[in-house]
This record gives sequence, structure tokens and C-alpha cells, in this order.
Amino acid sequence: MREVAVVGVGSTRFGEQWDKSFRDGFAEAGLKAIADARIKGEDIDSIYIGNMSAGKFIEQEHVGALVADVSGLSGFHIPATRVEGACASGALALRQGYLAIASGQNDLVVVAGVEKTTDVASELVEDMQASAADREWEGFQGATLPALFAMMARAHMHRYGTTREQLAQVAVQNHQNATRNPEAQYRRVIKIEDVMGSPWVADPLRVLDCAGAADGASALILAPLDQAKKYTQTPVVIAASSQTSGTLALHDRPDLTTIDSIQAAAQKAYQKAGVQPKDIQVAELHDSYTIAELLALEDLGFCPKGQSGKFVEEGQTLPDGQIAVNPGGGLKGCGHPLGATGVRQAIEIVHQLRGTAGDRQVPNAQVGLAQSLGGTGGTCVVHILRRP
Amino acid sequence: MREVAVVGVGSTRFGEQWDKSFRDGFAEAGLKAIADARIKGEDIDSIYIGNMSAGKFIEQEHVGALVADVSGLSGFHIPATRVEGACASGALALRQGYLAIASGQNDLVVVAGVEKTTDVASELVEDMQASAADREWEGFQGATLPALFAMMARAHMHRYGTTREQLAQVAVQNHQNATRNPEAQYRRVIKIEDVMGSPWVADPLRVLDCAGAADGASALILAPLDQAKKYTQTPVVIAASSQTSGTLALHDRPDLTTIDSIQAAAQKAYQKAGVQPKDIQVAELHDSYTIAELLALEDLGFCPKGQSGKFVEEGQTLPDGQIAVNPGGGLKGCGHPLGATGVRQAIEIVHQLRGTAGDRQVPNAQVGLAQSLGGTGGTCVVHILRRP
Repeated sequence: MREVAVVGVGSTRFGEQWDKSFRDGFAEAGLKAIADARIKGEDIDSIYIGNMSAGKFIEQEHVGALVADVSGLSGFHIPATRVEGACASGALALRQGYLAIASGQNDLVVVAGVEKTTDVASELVEDMQASAADREWEGFQGATLPALFAMMARAHMHRYGTTREQLAQVAVQNHQNATRNPEAQYRRVIKIEDVMGSPWVADPLRVLDCAGAADGASALILAPLDQAKKYTQTPVVIAASSQTSGTLALHDRPDLTTIDSIQAAAQKAYQKAGVQPKDIQVAELHDSYTIAELLALEDLGFCPKGQSGKFVEEGQTLPDGQIAVNPGGGLKGCGHPLGATGVRQAIEIVHQLRGTAGDRQVPNAQVGLAQSLGGTGGTCVVHILRRP
Repeated sequence: MREVAVVGVGSTRFGEQWDKSFRDGFAEAGLKAIADARIKGEDIDSIYIGNMSAGKFIEQEHVGALVADVSGLSGFHIPATRVEGACASGALALRQGYLAIASGQNDLVVVAGVEKTTDVASELVEDMQASAADREWEGFQGATLPALFAMMARAHMHRYGTTREQLAQVAVQNHQNATRNPEAQYRRVIKIEDVMGSPWVADPLRVLDCAGAADGASALILAPLDQAKKYTQTPVVIAASSQTSGTLALHDRPDLTTIDSIQAAAQKAYQKAGVQPKDIQVAELHDSYTIAELLALEDLGFCPKGQSGKFVEEGQTLPDGQIAVNPGGGLKGCGHPLGATGVRQAIEIVHQLRGTAGDRQVPNAQVGLAQSLGGTGGTCVVHILRRP
């Protein structure tokens, strides 16, 4: 299989964008990415789009065809495919685009994630999140997605002595990072006391432990590495793309403090890329809830099992720590437009490896990782990117 | 890229299955396909699932992870990806599975389509169909999916003299074919008078011009052709898999009597497979509405533009005609469980090419074609299958 490179990127700002529609979002991100790669629409071989909520929130399924159409590409009959895997939808789209190039099937692919979530009542967003978990065995019994992560947090605190303050530190740090990201939703500093004093969502998680609903769109362009110089002076290689499934429901897992779909996806990705956790300088992790970042740190092998709270508390995930985690602000700081998130994560890593991350640049980053989670771990996707 | 073969197939019966859940449907079809290919679950490299309505109708997104889980495969961390392209969702899943094998990425892939549509009010099913068309420019103005196809039918009648009776003949024939298919929903003969006397849906289309909502699941197993004999004595080769986009809304098309996404998909597929329309003995066409089959007959090149009504009237699409169309009953006779349909169509062609189609066997079929449509043609997928 061929080596695959990211040759163009573009995002909207994430947040409450009441003056922009779903269509506007895709068009803005897509046009930025196309301009970045200096390509024409008709050169595109296929489009993969990650989206979770359009069927419910804008009453529109078939959004693959929609984005081809609003981009003016339907006249070229370019295939456009929507993929969905809850909050990992964008990362799944990236993986399908990667496979299309790696296989030799396509030479130029657009991968996008788009979501419009702030035009509906917040209960509907909560319900949408719950549809990522096991509806029959969890949702219909009253479990929301934060409630399920709260159980994982409580188990981790009980078994490993992880503290409430350590959870809060994840949010504090990602907000701090977001102040340096012009596309982030929450560009304001918060303190541990702010997190600890914010309203309960599901004990022990509070509002500031949870990534906020947002509108947003992100797009990137993929090409074979050996053709990448046609499009950009700074291609970034996708060294590995791995995807795994885990049980949809928490009750089927032997251990609430481990997400084994992350462990399995990481193992496959490290093997494919020929790297180890210590080789990675920068990572975008799926901090939909603060506990989710702690579990990811452990299950990706960045720190030993049970030690993630201390690892964060010691500053090891700061830009000058052992590994720079969520330098763009993560889901917590950027906002979480479901299907757009996985693409935004990859774009942040691309900026870090290109050296175009501005104020938030991690010095001399060579290898980066992006990790996305669907539900509580029913799906995990890991991408490893590196400089060519 | 490698040659890809279908090495196992399985379906539930289509229809109103009030005693079976979404999960039951996938499990039944998947287990039948796995047994047919004599494989073990842990041998599977990945799963692609076509589904349109689960988010709304069973309040469950993330159905890729769900089907991996209910199949007992999440412990093996097998990647499972949902793809959605309205009524073409199943065909898109097949295409992604095909690419996974052809590329060398995977050696054994499960492709499935599952839908559960009869547990909700029929207005919701109508609304789901409308979400396949352009919601902002069509649905919100009051256009339902049958209303859009009705406009295409009226334009075809006006321009080419196609008659109401010729439309009815499509339904009559597909019902007749369905009587020979034990998995079809509508296994009863109807006459032209029955169609003409059935209630209006959208003039000129009546109830019996429209494929009915159904529950159903279909699954098939793909492997590289050079490994196919491990699994089956009768592999069937996927000679071409093509996908195209067209405008989502009808008003953007220069001509209502042509679906140019079908023409483009057909052209690519014929070229890839090295065949012409006349080489195809059997085809499953997307007759969600009777007019859709007529347009497909023309746009796939089985008869000249404008002649499809006469072509059907003359019996050219009967099992002993020029090309056997929808010998399994099509969407009209089998029922139309949205995402399952595209997989069922391919399975029918596999049975015809294996020679296992029972009472509905087309004698000595060598090459077959399956065509799926999303919405009114925003997406088209064409697969050509042949004996090895």
C-alpha cells in the first residue's frame, strides 16, 4: 500500500454559529482546504464526510450527496460517502480517505467533518450523545453519556486514588491551550476552583469537565506522498491509521478503568508506524470528558495504568512536558461538533508537524498522534502522523 | 488492485417483523452469511454496515459498534463502520467492503445492511424518505420523495408518451417475480387494474407504484478471489464497483427524464468490467417507485432513452426477455428496508450467478448488475458481478 500525505487543511471556527448553516460550514472548511492544497474541485476523486447528527438536527440524511452538491462537485459525479461512528465519525472519515489513497484507488481525496448542533434544544444534544452508547441497555435505563463516564471516573478514583482536582486540571490545561487557538470555542482561562464550583452534571463530573456542544466544520485533503509536492511544500505523512471496536455497553467490560478499544487501536498503530509512545511529541486526545483524557493517556501508553492523574498534575502533558497533549485545546477548549472533531484533531497535528501552529507550536515536533472515541469506547480510531 | 469475490450470503425475510429487533435482524443475516462461507467470527478483518434510520427509529447511532458487539466480535476489536447514503446505504457499504479487499488492506470483510422501519408511525417513514432529498429546497417546501418521483414520471409521460399502464406493468412484473422469492415481503400477484385502482400517493403515482416500508437485514462476505475457494465452491466476482454523485435537488437538473448519476456510474462500471449492457443477463434495479425502474433501464443503457415503457410492456425485462430485471422481486416485491436493500440486491445477483436462485433462476446467467439510488439520484451505486 502507498504512503499517504495530508496536503491541505481548513476549518471553521468552532462554537455557536447561529448565522451559519450546515451547508455554510462545509463550504467554508472545504474551500479553505482546497485553497491550501491549491487544487481544483474537478481534480477530486472522492469525498468522505463524518457526521453524526444531521438526520435529527437538520432533518437531512444523505449528507454525502449534499456536500458534493453544495460544493459544486455533483456535476463531476464525484463519489461522496458519509460515515458515522458517533463522536469518532470524523476520524472514521479520515481512515476511509486514507484507505482510498493507500490502496491506489484514488489520488486526491477530501475528508471532512461537519456538524450543526446548537440550533436545537440542549436536551436533544444530550439525547444524541446517549445514542452513541447502548440505547437498549444503557440509555433507556436512564444513563446519559456523562453518567457513563462518571462511573468510569468514580472507578478510577476508587482504584487508583485519582483526585477530583486532577480531573479538573485536565480542563484547566485544555482551556489554557485554547487561548492560543483562534478557531477554539472557549478561549478563556479557567482555574481548578472554577471547575470544582461549576454545576454537577453526573457526580463526580461537573459542567467544566464536559466538552461543550458546538457547530463546526473541518476538512483536509489527502494525496499519495509521492505526489504531495504538487500541492504543498509541507506534506505530513499518515504513518498509521487504526480502528477498533469495543463493547457498546459498560456492563460488558471486565474493568471500568480501561478502554480496551484504545489499547488495541494504539498497539496496531504503533506497530504499523514503527514507533513507541515515547517517540510521540504531540497528541490530540479525545477529552469529551476530563476522565476520557486520563484514560486515553494510560491506554495509549503515555503513562502507566493508574498514574494519569499524577502525570497531568506534574505538568507532563503541558507543551514543555513529556508529551504535549491537546495543544490546540482539545474537545474541551475547542468545543465538540461531534463529526468534525476527529478531522480537527488531525488538522491540529498537521499544523504542529508543519510548524504552522503559531503561538501554540510545540518546538520541533516530528511525530504526532490523534485519538478519537465513539461513545464510551465502542469505537476507537488512532492516527499517527509524522514529518516526511 | 486485487480481484474481489463474494463467498457467503445471508438474509432475513423482509417485511413487518414485529417480533424481531434491529439486533435480531443483523444477527440472523450475519450468522447465515458466516455459516454460508464457513468462517469463524474472529477471522473477520472488518465490517461495513449500511443503515439509514436507526438514529431516528430506534434512537441508536453508532450502529457499527453495535453490530460488532451483538455479533460477539467486539472482543476481537474488529473495526465496524457504518456508512449512510439514504436508500443506497447498503450498496455504499458493499463498495467500501470491496475497496477494503481490493486494496489488500483486508482479507475477509462482512458487509451488511440492516433496517427496522415498521415500529414507527408511517408519517415518520415518509419523513425519513424525504430526508434523502434536499430538505431545505424540497422537503421544507412540502415535497415528499414520491412527489419528486411523480414529477419525473409526469415529465417522462409528457415527453416520451410513456403510459400509466406501462408504469403499472413494472409493479405487476416485480410482484410476479416476488412470488418465487421466499424472502420477499409481497408474495402475491397483482394486475394492472389493481395498480390503477390503488389510492393516489402523488399523481401519477399510486400506492402500488411505491416500494413498501419493511424491516430486514442482509449480509455478505467478501474475500480476495485467489482465496475464495477456501470458503466456497461457487465464488462470484465483483467485476466493477462504481459510485457517483448527482444534484440533491431536482430543480438543479437540466432534464427530469434522465438521472445522470446513473449514467455516469454505469459508464464507469461497464468500462471497469469490460462489458456492455448487452452482455448482462440479469439485473437488480432500484425500483423504489415504478418510474425509477424505467429511468434506470434507460440510463443504464438497457434500452434507448424514452423507450423503457414500451420495453417493459413488450416483456423484454421478464425472465425470458432481453434482460431479466428484478427476478427476486425488486424493492417493489421484496419490500424496501432502506439500508438493507443494496445488500439484498447484490445477494440476488450472487444467487443468480451461482445457480442457486431456485424457482426464479435465470438460465445460464454469467454476468449480472445491481444498481442502487440514494434519494432521487444524489447518489448512485452500480456493481457488476460475474462468474469467475
